[in-house]
Amino acid sequence: MMQRLVLIGFGNVNRSLVELLEAKRPELEALGIEFLICGVYSRRLGFIVNPNGLDSKALLEQQIPADPFIVDVPTFLSAAQATVLFEASSLEPFSGQPAISYIEAALQIGVHVVTANKGPLVHAAQHLEALAREKRVKFRYEATFMGGIPIYSLLRSCLPVAKLLRFRGLPNSTSTVILEAWENGQSYEEGVRRAQEMGIAETDPSFDVDGWDSAVKIVGLANTMMNANLKLEDCSVTGIRSLTPEQVRQAKQDGQPYRLVASLRLFGKAVMARVAPEQVNGAFATVTGNDMLARFSFDVLPAIELIARDSGAKETAYDMLADFIECVGSKL
Amino acid sequence: MMQRLVLIGFGNVNRSLVELLEAKRPELEALGIEFLICGVYSRRLGFIVNPNGLDSKALLEQQIPADPFIVDVPTFLSAAQATVLFEASSLEPFSGQPAISYIEAALQIGVHVVTANKGPLVHAAQHLEALAREKRVKFRYEATFMGGIPIYSLLRSCLPVAKLLRFRGLPNSTSTVILEAWENGQSYEEGVRRAQEMGIAETDPSFDVDGWDSAVKIVGLANTMMNANLKLEDCSVTGIRSLTPEQVRQAKQDGQPYRLVASLRLFGKAVMARVAPEQVNGAFATVTGNDMLARFSFDVLPAIELIARDSGAKETAYDMLADFIECVGSKL
Repeated sequence: MMQRLVLIGFGNVNRSLVELLEAKRPELEALGIEFLICGVYSRRLGFIVNPNGLDSKALLEQQIPADPFIVDVPTFLSAAQATVLFEASSLEPFSGQPAISYIEAALQIGVHVVTANKGPLVHAAQHLEALAREKRVKFRYEATFMGGIPIYSLLRSCLPVAKLLRFRGLPNSTSTVILEAWENGQSYEEGVRRAQEMGIAETDPSFDVDGWDSAVKIVGLANTMMNANLKLEDCSVTGIRSLTPEQVRQAKQDGQPYRLVASLRLFGKAVMARVAPEQVNGAFATVTGNDMLARFSFDVLPAIELIARDSGAKETAYDMLADFIECVGSKL
Repeated sequence: MMQRLVLIGFGNVNRSLVELLEAKRPELEALGIEFLICGVYSRRLGFIVNPNGLDSKALLEQQIPADPFIVDVPTFLSAAQATVLFEASSLEPFSGQPAISYIEAALQIGVHVVTANKGPLVHAAQHLEALAREKRVKFRYEATFMGGIPIYSLLRSCLPVAKLLRFRGLPNSTSTVILEAWENGQSYEEGVRRAQEMGIAETDPSFDVDGWDSAVKIVGLANTMMNANLKLEDCSVTGIRSLTPEQVRQAKQDGQPYRLVASLRLFGKAVMARVAPEQVNGAFATVTGNDMLARFSFDVLPAIELIARDSGAKETAYDMLADFIECVGSKL
């Protein structure tokens, strides 16, 4: 069956995904997976559709005009005859919209959804999982958490009957980069600038440095993998601006640098979520720049640590590709 | 279908497995997996068989006598009406026998095999994989490499179309413990004694400290996951006894401790394998005691590091349990 792919959002992640899909076309065909890219929607580009396939190169060079007759996502999905939606629109942390409505529209008509958007997992994880089950399609979100480490597929496929008791990780690299700037005697602004140059920070990095990006990520993890039903406000959140540059420099000199740590812990049936700067050691202290770290403890395994070194948009795009294969590969 | 399990070898790993199977019986039943333990064979205990199930507690307390009429593994498998073999006999690194013949006997009659034995992967990986495919049963070996990190299932299930280019890891904890003894000004013998007290070193630890255990592990990894056909002698092997305690102490003081590093690298279509002590940094330098570390580089992901902290027989037994679920769970 020919897979007709549509993309919502066309920033670094979905652009990297298009390049990766083309680069891996032979390997995908060897797995029996054939695809056409049939639609792209972003607020800037509008709705670009062709059910017979768009040329990837022209798409990346933004040479294909939008179709002015298409004005909403349901029409877009139908016009493209979509079988898989890659949803990578901007995060709206406090409602998860409009991403939730896009994902709903796709699942509703039997389209698999692969998302890089954390918002829907915070605000509608159980609803969307149930809808996907009802419609017999897949809803996958590896790319929402630590690009380049297959956390969700690891938990789902490789660790059966293991009960997740604790998570502790460093899921926000903008905070790491700013803490490193302080360690090196640089200013907050210099740290922000470096994170922006690396392509990881927004114009306004408050959401990262104040801990909300980490909070959204771990609430999503708790709601999907620990059967929790947390809201964002259930997470205790302290950002790195609660520290002084001097504290951060001193901690580094003492060999126990500060990092913005995100933690989940199971107490009875309740899951507690917390984001706060902490002094760290061990592998946590080796995390710099774009590295991501996740540490899991289970009833049957004392601790597994996973680190992705230098994780960026390409690695996040790979997570989406792996999800795509998982969605459609089992039908072979 | 009732699974009739048989165990070959009854040391720490398979004993831990019996305890874990009993502890996780409710979760396994929830997955639709029911089982009886129907046979145990070890050189010391002989062949213990009951196709209607053996009592786990009595088995662990060694209160069940051997059956003197059973004298070989094929008869043992038939008498137990085995559906799954857990093979954890002693490693014979230079031939892989008799484990290979046990595994062959089981696969031949349609019994799934879960092994913790590295020898067969070095000497017969492709033969055994082909035999399992032909007989439509599974041959799984997660427990052969770094107990408590699901390396093989991660590579198999979570990282599709990713081409493994490099591996670098610390798969031998006896060497780590002896290097730590030297770092602390203790003797080789004190290090060996500590490793023995931790239950990780044999009476004669030469095989570990001279690098052969690591070599067997990475050759098995190369032969299964990199499509190589290496023999043990293709691996360049240097052990930690090539170092002086003074060198090791100095390296630690310099912040770049020695560890026994095992590496694989793809050159064109050839895989090069190497074991040697190296000065390390980053997460490698955080590895102590029973920790295990694996670092993988792929065409699509620059580097993933996985660390199992405090990995012992229980964690290896969990790897076997996960393999078991993978073998029989897909028939649900």
